[in-house]
Amino acid sequence: MKITEARVILSSPGRNFATLKITTDTGLTGLGDATLNGREKAVVAYLEEHVIPWLLGQDAERIEHVWQSLYKGAYWRRGPVTMTAIAAVDMALWDIKAKQAGLPLYQLLGGASRTGVTVYGHANGKSIDDCLSEVENYVAMGYQAVRLQCAIPGLDKAYGVAKGKLYYEPAERGLPPMETWSTPEYLDFIPELFAQARKQFGPHLKLLHDVHHRLTPQEAAALGKSLEPFRLGWLEDPTPADNPESFRLIRQHTTTPIATGEVLNHLQDFRVLVSEQLIDYVRTSVQRCGGLTHMRQIALFADAFQVRTGCHGATDLSPVTMGVALHFGLWVPNFGLQEYMRHNEETDAMFPHAYTFADGMLHPGEAPGHGVELDESMASEYPYQAASLPVAQLRDGTAWSW
Amino acid sequence: MKITEARVILSSPGRNFATLKITTDTGLTGLGDATLNGREKAVVAYLEEHVIPWLLGQDAERIEHVWQSLYKGAYWRRGPVTMTAIAAVDMALWDIKAKQAGLPLYQLLGGASRTGVTVYGHANGKSIDDCLSEVENYVAMGYQAVRLQCAIPGLDKAYGVAKGKLYYEPAERGLPPMETWSTPEYLDFIPELFAQARKQFGPHLKLLHDVHHRLTPQEAAALGKSLEPFRLGWLEDPTPADNPESFRLIRQHTTTPIATGEVLNHLQDFRVLVSEQLIDYVRTSVQRCGGLTHMRQIALFADAFQVRTGCHGATDLSPVTMGVALHFGLWVPNFGLQEYMRHNEETDAMFPHAYTFADGMLHPGEAPGHGVELDESMASEYPYQAASLPVAQLRDGTAWSW
Amino acid sequence: MKITEARVILSSPGRNFATLKITTDTGLTGLGDATLNGREKAVVAYLEEHVIPWLLGQDAERIEHVWQSLYKGAYWRRGPVTMTAIAAVDMALWDIKAKQAGLPLYQLLGGASRTGVTVYGHANGKSIDDCLSEVENYVAMGYQAVRLQCAIPGLDKAYGVAKGKLYYEPAERGLPPMETWSTPEYLDFIPELFAQARKQFGPHLKLLHDVHHRLTPQEAAALGKSLEPFRLGWLEDPTPADNPESFRLIRQHTTTPIATGEVLNHLQDFRVLVSEQLIDYVRTSVQRCGGLTHMRQIALFADAFQVRTGCHGATDLSPVTMGVALHFGLWVPNFGLQEYMRHNEETDAMFPHAYTFADGMLHPGEAPGHGVELDESMASEYPYQAASLPVAQLRDGTAWSW
Amino acid sequence: MKITEARVILSSPGRNFATLKITTDTGLTGLGDATLNGREKAVVAYLEEHVIPWLLGQDAERIEHVWQSLYKGAYWRRGPVTMTAIAAVDMALWDIKAKQAGLPLYQLLGGASRTGVTVYGHANGKSIDDCLSEVENYVAMGYQAVRLQCAIPGLDKAYGVAKGKLYYEPAERGLPPMETWSTPEYLDFIPELFAQARKQFGPHLKLLHDVHHRLTPQEAAALGKSLEPFRLGWLEDPTPADNPESFRLIRQHTTTPIATGEVLNHLQDFRVLVSEQLIDYVRTSVQRCGGLTHMRQIALFADAFQVRTGCHGATDLSPVTMGVALHFGLWVPNFGLQEYMRHNEETDAMFPHAYTFADGMLHPGEAPGHGVELDESMASEYPYQAASLPVAQLRDGTAWSW
Repeated sequence: MKITEARVILSSPGRNFATLKITTDTGLTGLGDATLNGREKAVVAYLEEHVIPWLLGQDAERIEHVWQSLYKGAYWRRGPVTMTAIAAVDMALWDIKAKQAGLPLYQLLGGASRTGVTVYGHANGKSIDDCLSEVENYVAMGYQAVRLQCAIPGLDKAYGVAKGKLYYEPAERGLPPMETWSTPEYLDFIPELFAQARKQFGPHLKLLHDVHHRLTPQEAAALGKSLEPFRLGWLEDPTPADNPESFRLIRQHTTTPIATGEVLNHLQDFRVLVSEQLIDYVRTSVQRCGGLTHMRQIALFADAFQVRTGCHGATDLSPVTMGVALHFGLWVPNFGLQEYMRHNEETDAMFPHAYTFADGMLHPGEAPGHGVELDESMASEYPYQAASLPVAQLRDGTAWSW
Repeated sequence: MKITEARVILSSPGRNFATLKITTDTGLTGLGDATLNGREKAVVAYLEEHVIPWLLGQDAERIEHVWQSLYKGAYWRRGPVTMTAIAAVDMALWDIKAKQAGLPLYQLLGGASRTGVTVYGHANGKSIDDCLSEVENYVAMGYQAVRLQCAIPGLDKAYGVAKGKLYYEPAERGLPPMETWSTPEYLDFIPELFAQARKQFGPHLKLLHDVHHRLTPQEAAALGKSLEPFRLGWLEDPTPADNPESFRLIRQHTTTPIATGEVLNHLQDFRVLVSEQLIDYVRTSVQRCGGLTHMRQIALFADAFQVRTGCHGATDLSPVTMGVALHFGLWVPNFGLQEYMRHNEETDAMFPHAYTFADGMLHPGEAPGHGVELDESMASEYPYQAASLPVAQLRDGTAWSW
Repeated sequence: MKITEARVILSSPGRNFATLKITTDTGLTGLGDATLNGREKAVVAYLEEHVIPWLLGQDAERIEHVWQSLYKGAYWRRGPVTMTAIAAVDMALWDIKAKQAGLPLYQLLGGASRTGVTVYGHANGKSIDDCLSEVENYVAMGYQAVRLQCAIPGLDKAYGVAKGKLYYEPAERGLPPMETWSTPEYLDFIPELFAQARKQFGPHLKLLHDVHHRLTPQEAAALGKSLEPFRLGWLEDPTPADNPESFRLIRQHTTTPIATGEVLNHLQDFRVLVSEQLIDYVRTSVQRCGGLTHMRQIALFADAFQVRTGCHGATDLSPVTMGVALHFGLWVPNFGLQEYMRHNEETDAMFPHAYTFADGMLHPGEAPGHGVELDESMASEYPYQAASLPVAQLRDGTAWSW
Repeated sequence: MKITEARVILSSPGRNFATLKITTDTGLTGLGDATLNGREKAVVAYLEEHVIPWLLGQDAERIEHVWQSLYKGAYWRRGPVTMTAIAAVDMALWDIKAKQAGLPLYQLLGGASRTGVTVYGHANGKSIDDCLSEVENYVAMGYQAVRLQCAIPGLDKAYGVAKGKLYYEPAERGLPPMETWSTPEYLDFIPELFAQARKQFGPHLKLLHDVHHRLTPQEAAALGKSLEPFRLGWLEDPTPADNPESFRLIRQHTTTPIATGEVLNHLQDFRVLVSEQLIDYVRTSVQRCGGLTHMRQIALFADAFQVRTGCHGATDLSPVTMGVALHFGLWVPNFGLQEYMRHNEETDAMFPHAYTFADGMLHPGEAPGHGVELDESMASEYPYQAASLPVAQLRDGTAWSW
């Protein structure tokens, strides 16, 4: 089965998405997600100028061969742009293979390991009360796990707190907005948020929190320790994960579960973190880390160390990624939790999909392939608009991790 | 000093180069190299669509701030595309700062630590005799170090052996060429090449060899051991360096000096390799690893472990990179060796430069800034042409590291 | 640019300072600080008898070469006397280079990374009330961080508590004063000081404390743990840092941030402390550790492990060191905090300087070079007077770390 | 017993020596060696300006208390200048104590553990033949161990090869001489020297070699490996010892015994080297490391890891150091070997001493104290003359370890 066409479709139904569509000489088509939030055009150029010319004429059935050829043949390996581009190809080819088999994708991976994929939602608020009332809404919708982010007294902006509630988007049209960060105010406030949340929602609701890389290792260790009485489901990205030594320090001081890796893109990024059991949840996604082919390897590696998946699933990834992630999550033996930030209505309409939500779980559906399509005529009505993630700075102007 | 304009100029005087030109409100301009061999357009899009809009209006004097903002603000860190784009900006800003100071760039780094930058050339041949006669030519030109690559009996193609002699280029116009690789033939042949070379050239000429990531760790350990009698200057990229465990194995078995890292782009990629002294030479370049700002950090880190620089300097980097690399090499305390693959005459003409070669050494010259300019009208006569690096496969078709 | 003259000027405007003045054949001059509190004359002799004779005629632009030659050429490496002597030369040469470039020194390092250098002041008191009222004074002056030292009930003398308030000086004219130390009284008292301070000043003021090497590792671990509820900005020099094992013990027991290193003088002294993330702040200074050249290397090393700078800045270093430290702090990516103990009026008058204080921050100013000069005629009116730091003993007469 | 006087006597009977003479109210006097080759005046100033004023009036019998007070009271610890100054005091006080007891010093340490102190001599030559003929001379004198250094073909200067034979001195009057170093020539030549030496002198003569810090860790490992067939007594200072990682690499590759540490001055400098058994011989001396008090601690620490002493004993230390070293060597349980470079006749005459040479061994003699005196009137005839150790550079001018 030869690849006869491959195109990237850019659209912006509220936020930008890059979708790769691969067509074969059998007429079968597959979709992959090529979106890299705030750096979309680099991936598009990577695909259009350097990958697609080679892809045309390749055998669509040799997924592993295509993956290895793109990865090793690039010579310059890894990194977010490269791995996102490879992922888009990989996801589309798995879509095609499952359609060829006439089966939903999870069946090719090994079949369903569970009834559905447990997800968590994002509760955010302008105050503790506002945030907890959002948690209540998620609980009412059946969620068993909720991430809590809250405005910090004394800070103009806090990560994960936006104008909207169910839908929000950190990237803004045009140039990157500048956000000021200050750690003392944050460290002082967060334990109180979770003290109240645990008190209000009892012992069983899974409460999560995302630090978004803003702390030093020592501060992260102290925060994890101070949150222990409130038994978090996980503490996410407590500090940048480039150097595993940082997580050794955190791990030494606290038993609060740790999730990390939404900005990591390769097994080698996780090797030490996982093999020394420095984290509990792997946060990369089928899209960021080179597709299903490589995510399968990462997850199976993590399983050997009793580390579970906790895949990124924010709206910076399109419904195509969500579809593939759900097939993956339904199968993977060491599934942990799946992020689920709802796309807006335009996005859901533009990407008709087989997956459904019920009782705090998503299910990928039974459509052959990954079950997500793209309405190209609708896409053409929402053209790409440059948007940027914020840049964070300390009060004295020092650049900081956003 | 505000940045008022930033443009990428693509040209192809024999091979593709992407050059970033930054202009400030003082009229001072700076040049950076944004070339990523075979993935040029991804970097161009990264710069034009996502970096330059933010760059306009920034203070050109705040180099560290611009670097940290681009690095941390991207959210999706590291990787060849990202780090090359940041490098282009960084190089141009250091060019501007040195011009502002009215000094050659090496003076800002700490001044000259030596009289010149010792370089090595590439001798390649269709046979051992052919290769050694090329070595002779380099010795006649004054070189004190030469890399030897040779056609392998039984293999159609070997890395580093090309049609030309003084000038050659592995990338080819259009689609990636396919090359077949077979390890047994290679391992059998290489020791003989170096036995003859050492015999012919005596004990003092520095003989180097590039494995180009084609061996397994065990094979690399065995090759290093078998080459010990011929005392190589270094064995380069014996195996992929993503997992330092591989280099622990090599290091355990051989005292042959090891150089690696031309595909690595971040200090964290080198942290374990260097801090456990698994390698002797760091091969990344001022261009691949985010510019002078980050290369300075990597080199000073390596110095703490008696590891030296051995910077990549093939023609896939433009004369702009060579210029900056020479200022860097003239200063850096733990300089080891600099690769010098000569650009063709068109390239040299298109990029007028202050650096000069004499007695086996390059010197960056005394022009303010980095001393490399771009003849834009000439550049416009050599438009970009898509070209690709080869893809390697084993005899059975298995994709392999090229 | 040849060095034509180098002289050490000793003066004592309240306390002793040794200043190195280097003159070049261009007429440009540079100043470096050669003061080693209580051991001043050893550094002066090191410079006058062994360094300056070699320095005359050297190229002032080759800062790195001069540094490496003095460091490696001494044969007997490291140590406070050697590294202070080298620092004085290095600071003076960077001053000259920046003047040659016509730029403030921070521009040569990479430009400003922030609007100013956040500093902390020293509050000391005869009682908790007295100490907290001093903290109030600092807050009123705009400080965001204050170090608290307090007389200990039952002890005649405590480190950091002196007759004066804004100005004080631990060294005394003539022979070393003897001070008695007793750990139990100290451990019993300090948590109460910080309990009250945190209560009075709320959660955001950065509260620091200096143990001054007086505890055993176990005692330091216990103190760090007992202070956790009051969230210190840092605990300084909890125990001598010669053996990193001591800090492994402390780190194992507490998340209180740790700062150390004002008596350390080389990257290798910090290598394990930093690479195992046993500390959070590096306390050496541009003067104690061989100058800007080596401090740059130490700080960039620390940055790879998310460890930040917290440079020593007591009055045992002259305004020349403060000037260079501020250029360094304005640039360095991983700046943490800068100590700022005010010099007396005579010292400020003798060393006219471009740096200024406002809103809890110092700024190095925009004068070319480091911006600190020396009024030699005034210096000659304040001749050197021998002075000594105290010697500490336990109640039974056992010699103890002061 | 109060210290009533302490004076430093500088003299230069061929090379500079600084001798500390302490007098007590009992009339007993003691001598210590304060010589730091090429940095003599810094130690003299350290003693005269900062140590002696405090020393006067102290109890000469409280050696440990004086040591701890000088070490901890300086605040700025370790380093060659500090530790040499403390050593001079310590040696003089031990001399006094043994005189007070009316016993040779070794008796106070624990008595003689052996009949004498086995020493090695320095054979150096302009060629292999020349060098081996020198070895013959040493063998004829009864030596059981000889260090071989030889001129390297292609190099102007090699370490340890001088004009004289039995007497030579690397420091030169006036400014530091510049010496060029090149590793390839050296690595090529040395194995041949030892191949011939082992062949000529049979299996039992102990053959030593000093690399003098000139190799990288990898080169040192390769040299050690290549010398294994000739079974060296030790390979000395193969690479700088600041970072023990370097010695892990060497140790991994070769069983050639390793000696290091003549430039180290504190137990903490040896802690990892010894506790991981990375070296076989500790090369610091009673003079460089703070005196007998601290050398005793270092040696006893080494004994716990079966590492032995191999004390520095070149002529840059005066006969006073040699005397103390011999008392130390006669006692210390884990004695290995003692360097013995003969002082010239003037020096021997100026420092009348009880120690004697016979049958390849030195014996400290039975005089009370350490048995070395100083003829002050003769010393006054040989005034101090500035002299400097060489500075080494690579062929391209890069500063290198001498």
